[in-house]
Amino acid sequence: MSLSSLLWAFWYILPAYFANASPVLVGGGRPIDGGRYWKDGRRVFGDGKTWRGLIGGVAIGTAVGALQYFITPEFYGSLGKALLLAFLLSFGALFGDLVGSFFKRRIDLPRGSPAIGLDQLGFLISALAFAYPVKTLDSGQIIFLLVVSPFVHWGANYFAYKMGWKSVPW
Amino acid sequence: MSLSSLLWAFWYILPAYFANASPVLVGGGRPIDGGRYWKDGRRVFGDGKTWRGLIGGVAIGTAVGALQYFITPEFYGSLGKALLLAFLLSFGALFGDLVGSFFKRRIDLPRGSPAIGLDQLGFLISALAFAYPVKTLDSGQIIFLLVVSPFVHWGANYFAYKMGWKSVPW
Repeated sequence: MSLSSLLWAFWYILPAYFANASPVLVGGGRPIDGGRYWKDGRRVFGDGKTWRGLIGGVAIGTAVGALQYFITPEFYGSLGKALLLAFLLSFGALFGDLVGSFFKRRIDLPRGSPAIGLDQLGFLISALAFAYPVKTLDSGQIIFLLVVSPFVHWGANYFAYKMGWKSVPW
Repeated sequence: MSLSSLLWAFWYILPAYFANASPVLVGGGRPIDGGRYWKDGRRVFGDGKTWRGLIGGVAIGTAVGALQYFITPEFYGSLGKALLLAFLLSFGALFGDLVGSFFKRRIDLPRGSPAIGLDQLGFLISALAFAYPVKTLDSGQIIFLLVVSPFVHWGANYFAYKMGWKSVPW
């Protein structure tokens, strides 16, 4: 495992990180569950998961992929492949986040409360799974991302909290 | 991704699953933190993490690896490599679990309360990282294990709860 292979792993996953972080900035609006309740009497996803956050996050992540293609075209091969990869990483990240919210509501964690592990890893695993058919990393790079992403995630959230973008530091 | 490659992924990770599950059966005894408190006034790991659970779990996981070698020697190459791999997978799994307990105590989750995600993925990621230098999987197999392990984990814990081995179903 060379240093450059670890940097390429971050470069690969960047759209997923942007998509996962962007609802903090572009979120709000109509909730995806339309205010509906699950059969346990609790919200399906909650007010924290909105269409604007989902669509905005996928758009931002995919735009990041377009920028990445123009910086390192040889890493992607073609603009079409770069855009498809970034779309799948972004959609995968937000889909994983949504599934996480579903499980958090089911065990009755209130919106915004931490699910230590799920919040830091669910979006990443989902992004890796969605993007796998188009382009993947080697196993060492994946293990590296899994080990360091929780710390990146906590650092980024603490920064967003200090900047006043989030009301809680996780 | 063929079916057999997914079955090999389970076969590879089996010592980690056994090590992670075994403290339920062989646990108890003297806690690893010796009853000591962290500077936040809470226990370092708590009474749930004991020397007997750690050593018993590593022993059971490594014994599983020895059995695996005699069933599929060609997968490991040599008994020494199979034992080393099983030891690293088992120790890695329990080390990840211990780190998870440390973080759970820091955010003041009581012993046994669920950290959705961390409990299902922390031991797995740690096992994969420790075992990586000896033998690893391909990226598709790793992503597969990450996606399905939470469900295996929940199923196994629910079974242990129904059998009366655990007091809570998670």
